[in-house]
Amino acid sequence: MQLGLSVSDSDVSSFTPLVVLELADDTKAEAITWLLNRIRDKQQNGGAELLVNQLLFPAQDDQKPNPNVFVVGSTLQRLLNGAEDVGLFKEFQDGTMRGFTYANRESFNDFNEGFLSDAECQYIIKHELDTLRAKNEEHVPGYPKLKLYPGKSVVRRLQSKGVLNQYFPLHNKEDLKRLSFSWYKKFKLSFQPLDDIRHYFGEGLALYFGFLEYFTFALVPMALIGIPYYLFDWEDYDKYVLFAVFNLVWSTVFLEVWKRCSATLAYGWGTLSRKKAFEEPRAGFHGALGFNPVTGREEPVYPSSKRQLRIYLVSVPFVLLCLYLSFYVMMVYFDMEFWAINIYNEDPSIATSILLFVPSIIYAVVIEIMNLLYRFAAEFLTDWENHRLESSFQNHLVLKVLVFNFVNCFASLFYIAFVMQDMVLLRQSLATLLITSQILNQVMEAFLPYWLQRRRNKKVHKRMRRLMGDKELPLLGQVKLETEMNTYLGTFDDYLEQFLLFGYVSLFSCVYPLAAVLVVLNNITEVYSDAFKMCHVFKRPFSEPATNIGVWQLAFETMSIIAVVTNCALIGLSPQVKAYFPESDTQLILIVVAIEHVLLAFKFILAFVIPDVPKHIQVNLAKLEFDSLEAFKKRVSTHLYMCTYLSHANRKCGGSPEIRLS
Amino acid sequence: MQLGLSVSDSDVSSFTPLVVLELADDTKAEAITWLLNRIRDKQQNGGAELLVNQLLFPAQDDQKPNPNVFVVGSTLQRLLNGAEDVGLFKEFQDGTMRGFTYANRESFNDFNEGFLSDAECQYIIKHELDTLRAKNEEHVPGYPKLKLYPGKSVVRRLQSKGVLNQYFPLHNKEDLKRLSFSWYKKFKLSFQPLDDIRHYFGEGLALYFGFLEYFTFALVPMALIGIPYYLFDWEDYDKYVLFAVFNLVWSTVFLEVWKRCSATLAYGWGTLSRKKAFEEPRAGFHGALGFNPVTGREEPVYPSSKRQLRIYLVSVPFVLLCLYLSFYVMMVYFDMEFWAINIYNEDPSIATSILLFVPSIIYAVVIEIMNLLYRFAAEFLTDWENHRLESSFQNHLVLKVLVFNFVNCFASLFYIAFVMQDMVLLRQSLATLLITSQILNQVMEAFLPYWLQRRRNKKVHKRMRRLMGDKELPLLGQVKLETEMNTYLGTFDDYLEQFLLFGYVSLFSCVYPLAAVLVVLNNITEVYSDAFKMCHVFKRPFSEPATNIGVWQLAFETMSIIAVVTNCALIGLSPQVKAYFPESDTQLILIVVAIEHVLLAFKFILAFVIPDVPKHIQVNLAKLEFDSLEAFKKRVSTHLYMCTYLSHANRKCGGSPEIRLS
Repeated sequence: MQLGLSVSDSDVSSFTPLVVLELADDTKAEAITWLLNRIRDKQQNGGAELLVNQLLFPAQDDQKPNPNVFVVGSTLQRLLNGAEDVGLFKEFQDGTMRGFTYANRESFNDFNEGFLSDAECQYIIKHELDTLRAKNEEHVPGYPKLKLYPGKSVVRRLQSKGVLNQYFPLHNKEDLKRLSFSWYKKFKLSFQPLDDIRHYFGEGLALYFGFLEYFTFALVPMALIGIPYYLFDWEDYDKYVLFAVFNLVWSTVFLEVWKRCSATLAYGWGTLSRKKAFEEPRAGFHGALGFNPVTGREEPVYPSSKRQLRIYLVSVPFVLLCLYLSFYVMMVYFDMEFWAINIYNEDPSIATSILLFVPSIIYAVVIEIMNLLYRFAAEFLTDWENHRLESSFQNHLVLKVLVFNFVNCFASLFYIAFVMQDMVLLRQSLATLLITSQILNQVMEAFLPYWLQRRRNKKVHKRMRRLMGDKELPLLGQVKLETEMNTYLGTFDDYLEQFLLFGYVSLFSCVYPLAAVLVVLNNITEVYSDAFKMCHVFKRPFSEPATNIGVWQLAFETMSIIAVVTNCALIGLSPQVKAYFPESDTQLILIVVAIEHVLLAFKFILAFVIPDVPKHIQVNLAKLEFDSLEAFKKRVSTHLYMCTYLSHANRKCGGSPEIRLS
Repeated sequence: MQLGLSVSDSDVSSFTPLVVLELADDTKAEAITWLLNRIRDKQQNGGAELLVNQLLFPAQDDQKPNPNVFVVGSTLQRLLNGAEDVGLFKEFQDGTMRGFTYANRESFNDFNEGFLSDAECQYIIKHELDTLRAKNEEHVPGYPKLKLYPGKSVVRRLQSKGVLNQYFPLHNKEDLKRLSFSWYKKFKLSFQPLDDIRHYFGEGLALYFGFLEYFTFALVPMALIGIPYYLFDWEDYDKYVLFAVFNLVWSTVFLEVWKRCSATLAYGWGTLSRKKAFEEPRAGFHGALGFNPVTGREEPVYPSSKRQLRIYLVSVPFVLLCLYLSFYVMMVYFDMEFWAINIYNEDPSIATSILLFVPSIIYAVVIEIMNLLYRFAAEFLTDWENHRLESSFQNHLVLKVLVFNFVNCFASLFYIAFVMQDMVLLRQSLATLLITSQILNQVMEAFLPYWLQRRRNKKVHKRMRRLMGDKELPLLGQVKLETEMNTYLGTFDDYLEQFLLFGYVSLFSCVYPLAAVLVVLNNITEVYSDAFKMCHVFKRPFSEPATNIGVWQLAFETMSIIAVVTNCALIGLSPQVKAYFPESDTQLILIVVAIEHVLLAFKFILAFVIPDVPKHIQVNLAKLEFDSLEAFKKRVSTHLYMCTYLSHANRKCGGSPEIRLS
């Protein structure tokens, strides 16, 4: 078995460095010594039993480098034990995925070469660092005010108190080169190398790219239908209705099939059957000292009634205020729109016809800016609500952001569609919003960070070269470079963008069939720019074991329900359908409502009937459970047998507790 | 610790008899000997290690009694081991519920007296009998054609081939007396003794009675509001609307709160945290010999494609045909209704005014008969579909029966309400249907079986007395009596009845506010008649560990969604609401539809926000999981330590594998 990283930097570090640990540069020496000892200490003494080395950067003319940067590595033996601790699933010799155990290590496929990927090793080290728990120490040595609670994570405590600046996994240059070549450097019509992405970045990110790819491919049929609609201007035919019906079926089937795809991916990666670990409080959680009702241990507690008060008295009013602001901006946009139309009507020329698009473009930019500002405010508020668990923090954040973004992006379109009932304006507004936001997103998300990063890279390179001349120390240079890279903040923004694009397509694409084409084009460039930003713009993130896309599945499903209602309403408004009921609007509405109810019921039944996990994976999971049940039974009976044997042997030896094991 | 049954029948059976096993009276002697041996054999030889005795009934003049009746009992030790096998949860000394283990038995509360209830002992014996597995036998001795498959349940095989007639638990006369006294013999306004019911009949039945009680109490406010509505004939006021809105909120909150109640009950009874056992194929399942993909064992398999064909080509068309028939009968009913109204209009007298109710009564009776016939057909068809698992059989049966019963009972009401829009006829029809079906149900469900049972009891008593004179053998008499009692077929029909009552109340009670009163009255008598029938009319059923009311929760929730739609439509149809929109129906419909959508969305959000399990139980469950995780970790580290110690000791002793255990 080989670990991927090269060991050529033996003069800097005597082991393969996997994770960088950066403490604040004014950390007291005794705290550092204590922390390193705890990390190096044997497991049976409560240590993490990892290897750790200091990195000493040469001093610079203009500024002192941070002396407290460490690299962490591990022995293979320790990593394998850690793999069992974190409950890693690997392919067993019979082809099924099983929980890895050190005792059965030889029975797993590929045990002898590249068994643990880089990302897995780093995840294991992160887990071991995170679960390094305080023992009897009352406080961090040298910091009498930085209290420690027995059994609580030391690293999280240091991080939330600012002693530990950051810790992050190192890139593996060779693997990265190979990955980026197969991923985005060659132009190709093949799929993304999802297994390689998962290998390098972990399951969470690989699932995002899998979803992005799946979504893009799912949009292709819609885009193909949309092009002739647009080109031949099929407006007089039953355009709306057919497209809306297609939309309905598509958005339901799309999400159901994705669930199965994601289960297949997660099974193959061994995360589907993995048990959830006990969730620790998040790093930023604080409160008065009390007892955890579950573990019975002393730890900070925060009354949930106080949190509820903060949520309902501050957060909810704030969100409502923001929504009101968003509506206000929308009304300003409509005023601008009318003003532009008036000017155009008074003097129709090329200049004024361009002017027609200006309000929408301005509005799109304002929407993006508002989304961005709101995002910061939501994060601040959710943090202030002081949630104990990361998952509950995430849920509250996602809910806040989704509600606002949905209203902010789509309110004007709903208003145009159902209040003004102006389909021409709807089409124009939709197109402008979509194109502007796509361009803005690509710039904000990839090109701007890339440009900033390139400037920084050059500076660091220059500085390193100036300092060391020809004597190059790749590890020092790499650590220096990556320490200053931006941190990737998780897949949140990427999913959010896809969510909004899904909204544009599923809600209104029957009015503007080119929307699907635009989204497909956007997503193709998105794959490239996201891949590039993961490989070269941001610090490597720790891999996250993910079974599915989590709360986003729910968000997309909610959107698809809203899409059913919207599309039915659009069908009801279409002149073609109205023509069938020349006399009575009432009858038309009743029929549309009835069809909508049937479709919604059908959607729920479909979601209920299609199994979320494909049959063959269900069988494999059942097999796993059956086997573990059988093994348990066998263990119990062996145990009984052993006990009988032991007591028997004891009796035979006349009370002398001496037994013989062959 | 004491087992409840008296041991006074020591001349008949040397142990407390708990379960009766009745083989066919022409069973071959070698098969009987083999079966008894297998039941008595030690567990390590693959036996059930239970006590079993033959019961010899004295010969009678007119007919030979079945000689192959056996009673099964067990030692306390065996029962405790069995309790661990089935994964029973009991109250631990710290007040939480924990999985019972024999090793920790002294740490459980009340271990020394009445630890295992009768029902639990019988459930354990049933489990041990059911999991008595075939070893190397190729067939049942004496029956070369009755093949056995290694590892498959012997008892289920014998049962499905008709060698084993039945096996059922015996009543405990003393406990039964006590239970029936506190349950239904004294008239009281207190709650039912749910814990005692669970103690005697198991969790499944206790949950049904809990639900019945909860449902009845939940209806009381609605009944209280309904009475003045009815008495003062508040028709001119905004009667509909207020009542319909109340209905909406009530039906949503009702089901959400029940989930929490049922979780609380199930936690207290130790079934909430119990792991699901591996599900064996049902007794009636048959197919060609193949390999189970999960266990890898040889067993009958039946291709699911064939089952799908049977479902879609036979069952679905049959259900549709029955639905058509039901519609046809409905149309005949309407003809009769018009005919009666015509006669009344021509000659309004008391006689003809009574005649007005006749069609509804006939229709109600016909509905009940059709439901009954369909029930048998559905059971036959679902059996013929040859489902492998009992749970999948149940789901398909419930689905078939629910769809038909819903249409059969409510189609006419929907037709009257929304097509004919005749609220007077709706009210009259609803009242007649409800009252007639309630009366019929009580008769069919309790009084008829009771009457039949009483006749049979008398006969048996007379016969036994004639045979044995004064020398009474209570056990023989009891077994004889109970063998001939009807088998209780589970809570299906009871839940179905409540489901239909819930439908009447939640769908249409705004039109006929007395419906809730009628249902409350019905349910009060229902408690008594159901309690009586469980105690004295049917064989004692085996207890079933249940966590919730299962598929019925879903059924009730679906009904409550339909109730939202129906009530909104009824509101829209009401003259009071229509009066607000004198000019345009369109606007009214749009507003009603909008309100309905908001209500449905609100309902889903409510269901999502209210946690299904109360907070303090969640904490207890998390604690349990945390403790088991910690125990596991400790075990692993002890194991590691042991291994190190052993290998160390081995080395010290110079290769001689002799170790010392203190």
